[in-house]
Amino acid sequence: MTARRSERDDVAATMERLGRDARTAARSLVLASSDAKNAALKAAAAAVRAASSEILDANARDVAEAKSGGATSAFLDRLALDAKRVESIAKSVEDVSTLPDPVGQADKAWTQPNGLRFERVRVPLGVIGIIFESRPNVTADAGALCLKSGNAAILRAGSESFHSSSAIAACLAEGLRAAGLLEAAIQLVPTKDRAAVGAMLAMQGVIDVIVPRGGKSLIARVQAESRVPVIAHLDGLCHTYVDGTADLAMARQVTLNAKMRRTGVCGATETLLVDRRCAATHLKPILDDLTATGCEIRGCAETRALDPRARPASEADWSAEYLDAILSVRIVGGVEEAIDHIRRYGSQHTDAIVTEDKATAERFLQQIDSAIVLWNASTQFADGGEFGFGAEIGISTGKLHARGPVGAEHLTSWKYVVRGTGQTRP
Amino acid sequence: MTARRSERDDVAATMERLGRDARTAARSLVLASSDAKNAALKAAAAAVRAASSEILDANARDVAEAKSGGATSAFLDRLALDAKRVESIAKSVEDVSTLPDPVGQADKAWTQPNGLRFERVRVPLGVIGIIFESRPNVTADAGALCLKSGNAAILRAGSESFHSSSAIAACLAEGLRAAGLLEAAIQLVPTKDRAAVGAMLAMQGVIDVIVPRGGKSLIARVQAESRVPVIAHLDGLCHTYVDGTADLAMARQVTLNAKMRRTGVCGATETLLVDRRCAATHLKPILDDLTATGCEIRGCAETRALDPRARPASEADWSAEYLDAILSVRIVGGVEEAIDHIRRYGSQHTDAIVTEDKATAERFLQQIDSAIVLWNASTQFADGGEFGFGAEIGISTGKLHARGPVGAEHLTSWKYVVRGTGQTRP
Repeated sequence: MTARRSERDDVAATMERLGRDARTAARSLVLASSDAKNAALKAAAAAVRAASSEILDANARDVAEAKSGGATSAFLDRLALDAKRVESIAKSVEDVSTLPDPVGQADKAWTQPNGLRFERVRVPLGVIGIIFESRPNVTADAGALCLKSGNAAILRAGSESFHSSSAIAACLAEGLRAAGLLEAAIQLVPTKDRAAVGAMLAMQGVIDVIVPRGGKSLIARVQAESRVPVIAHLDGLCHTYVDGTADLAMARQVTLNAKMRRTGVCGATETLLVDRRCAATHLKPILDDLTATGCEIRGCAETRALDPRARPASEADWSAEYLDAILSVRIVGGVEEAIDHIRRYGSQHTDAIVTEDKATAERFLQQIDSAIVLWNASTQFADGGEFGFGAEIGISTGKLHARGPVGAEHLTSWKYVVRGTGQTRP
Repeated sequence: MTARRSERDDVAATMERLGRDARTAARSLVLASSDAKNAALKAAAAAVRAASSEILDANARDVAEAKSGGATSAFLDRLALDAKRVESIAKSVEDVSTLPDPVGQADKAWTQPNGLRFERVRVPLGVIGIIFESRPNVTADAGALCLKSGNAAILRAGSESFHSSSAIAACLAEGLRAAGLLEAAIQLVPTKDRAAVGAMLAMQGVIDVIVPRGGKSLIARVQAESRVPVIAHLDGLCHTYVDGTADLAMARQVTLNAKMRRTGVCGATETLLVDRRCAATHLKPILDDLTATGCEIRGCAETRALDPRARPASEADWSAEYLDAILSVRIVGGVEEAIDHIRRYGSQHTDAIVTEDKATAERFLQQIDSAIVLWNASTQFADGGEFGFGAEIGISTGKLHARGPVGAEHLTSWKYVVRGTGQTRP
């Protein structure tokens, strides 16, 4: 009991120190030049490349521990690094250095009748806490994006990737040192103790925002417990609706891509809605493509009548985020019914319509209140890179602060710079 | 005990109903036209004017109860309405109807190399909870701004203004009805029971954001307890720095206005910093103006040596938000010392520099990380109306989601509308 209490005290003291150092770093980062930040990123990328064998050794320790702990092969695949993956970590950090710096950008400017000139200028948020699971590359990606946007980062790696993350974090520190920036700009929580997560969630006023990256149970815990604001990704129950006027070839390729390009990503389509007007002509060819690539179909009664390959869909299927090669399919009576279905079962993440009719498309785009709505394009475009953001720290399913892909710009706030000539308020 | 539990149950049931109705209203408001929202606002303004005597009667009840409860005269002044104040409530609601509707505005648009066209379109946040104290006009102002931005509002009025707020809320409901919108778009919590505040703070997933408006103890309670994200206004410890190159006449008028125009507002200057280079010429005339209008001066030793009218300032004075006719004054050795002082003691709200030197001004504007930084203008411009936002729900001292004056636009989120021609992701 005493031992446990003293461990808890140690974690608390460690987190307090990390928080203090992060705030100091954040204050100095507000004034860091783009050149200094980019130099740190380039030096960090070089350090990752130079330390490739140390990183792989550390990773081997993590993998061995995870194996002996009985980790699944999917888990091990996320955890394991090889030379190619280490190079891709270095490359990602380097790529962030080439992105535009959001800090100092004036995104609005106007003059009031009294002559006061207003500018809204981007500034860093402060200190960002990232809590992630077994992917070691998140250490570098998240640290780089926080630095780019002028924020100090406190990174809490999953305990299974602790050695890999520590080795990568050492490279980031080397980059910061080389550029004359404070090493505390990117700190990895130096303990596997899970109490550190609880401590981070309670660091109101020290950490400005928490970004959890991982499975649903992690995100649920963070959202339930956190006293710090959270930017998080919840469900991605995405729909593709094939309207009666859809071009068949386009409907086939968009649906196939939306479901099967990668089934485990949040932008993968989970439910296909097909307009009754084109079901007789479009449904079978679309399902041909899907079944040919190994997708299981779960259809409504009408779908099954048209295509006996479909298994029966239950009510639960309309709410299922499979993240797998399974698709639920429902025949609907036009765009209004499709909108009703998506409103009822969707998760306001990403939804698409395939149609040749502009008015129908615009109705769908306006009425579906999802982070991303697409016309004649695959739901798998739900990705910061595809948006042109260069890198993303995740996709936000909340509406506060940032919605959709979260890039460097979304890790900033603003200040108003007002220039006058002696104006006083009447 | 049983009675108390049943009261608590009543409050819980009431809040649950309010929450459910608000979410239904929010869903329909996403699609409400600007015309319908503006018609509701105009009809509500007309209803306030028509119900002026009912509102004044209700207010008289509130005032009588507050008086018998021993309220201070400042409190009664905030609470009491007269015909002029009722007209100004109606006018404010009407004014909101003339503001541009942020919903549906595309504030960014771009095309990716693959031909996908992206638009970032403003959408409502959802349900906004406003918790406020004794000013009955907040009922109308907050309700109107939420409606304008397409959000459902749950308004919790201070128990002392319950009757006034109820009478005003009835007028808002009349406006909504007249325009064919759901009355639940703006709901006043129909009980004085303080348990309703706790219930609101726990309505995660039902209320999207809470905006507290009132004294520091209310805001502190909301920030400490809320499970719902909060947009709040904390301290306004604002500074005016008079640089060595400042024009004397400008420094006098800006400082006088910044301190004395209204001493009780958050943008009022609390500390004057004067560059040693101009202290001999500028300090006395500036303090002349201030003392002539009844301002008490608390100065550092150097200030007192130059002007014996100043009382001694203690360390606590540099951290004091007086909200009164008191000013702390310190002589500093140039802009760097001024910046250091503001970083140490300021509240990152609003800070101004008076100088004729552009380079010095830009250094100050860049290095002070406050929501509003001004050059040659009064800190009292910290106000949404003065920014051209038309109306504000408050000033945010946080950096997440919105910083500085919070207008209709800041009560929105966005969605990405993506238009393609059959694009699939490689």
